[in-house]
Amino acid sequence: MIIEETIKQWHQLLEAKDPSQLKNLLADDVVFHSPVLHTPQKGKALTTMYLSAAFYVLTNSGFKYIREVLQDNQAVLEFEAVVDDIVVNGVDMIECDENGKITDFKVLVRPLKGLQMLQTKMFELLSKK
Amino acid sequence: MIIEETIKQWHQLLEAKDPSQLKNLLADDVVFHSPVLHTPQKGKALTTMYLSAAFYVLTNSGFKYIREVLQDNQAVLEFEAVVDDIVVNGVDMIECDENGKITDFKVLVRPLKGLQMLQTKMFELLSKK
Repeated sequence: MIIEETIKQWHQLLEAKDPSQLKNLLADDVVFHSPVLHTPQKGKALTTMYLSAAFYVLTNSGFKYIREVLQDNQAVLEFEAVVDDIVVNGVDMIECDENGKITDFKVLVRPLKGLQMLQTKMFELLSKK
Repeated sequence: MIIEETIKQWHQLLEAKDPSQLKNLLADDVVFHSPVLHTPQKGKALTTMYLSAAFYVLTNSGFKYIREVLQDNQAVLEFEAVVDDIVVNGVDMIECDENGKITDFKVLVRPLKGLQMLQTKMFELLSKK
């Protein structure tokens, strides 16, 4: 299953807390789908920006993956984190091409309170740039 | 893969627009995780109520599944619908026991606007009961 090696590298990147490794893992024409916004964010630069910001907000908040469902070139990783005492439960839906590069990255978050908190944090962080 | 038959029956139930079939598909101790609320909703009665209401809101809105990822006893079904001109994109995460009965049903929805719209519609519908 082609996605397995991609997900292995994804986990290594998260463990190393090193978003700079994203450049090796993302396809040039990768599309990022935000849990908050409808409009897809296209390309490596925008996707790297969003994922790096999410790293920053979530990885110091007890972020952990709690379920993985893999098939062919598709992976769904369910995560949980607690930010400012608010539970954030979400999924990363990841699609890769035949070379294992990530071509599509979609994030969904529940419950509503968790999503609103994430929106506030991400907005604060991205506004500073 | 045990989940395949369960998902086949789930699709038949949706095509027939017949939520009464849920009684055969859900385990007695099934847990439903709402996209809006943090607290898990426990048992067949509550899960049937939420899923039936979601059927009502979504199935007349061009609801369709656009991606399926299955592994072992886990399924992730991604859907899309358009309600009052607002796009609702979400996933159903379904877990079954060794008999193929659904023991865990989690729904996540994006974008924020779609989730808020769904919250309003579900609240209106469930308040009438």
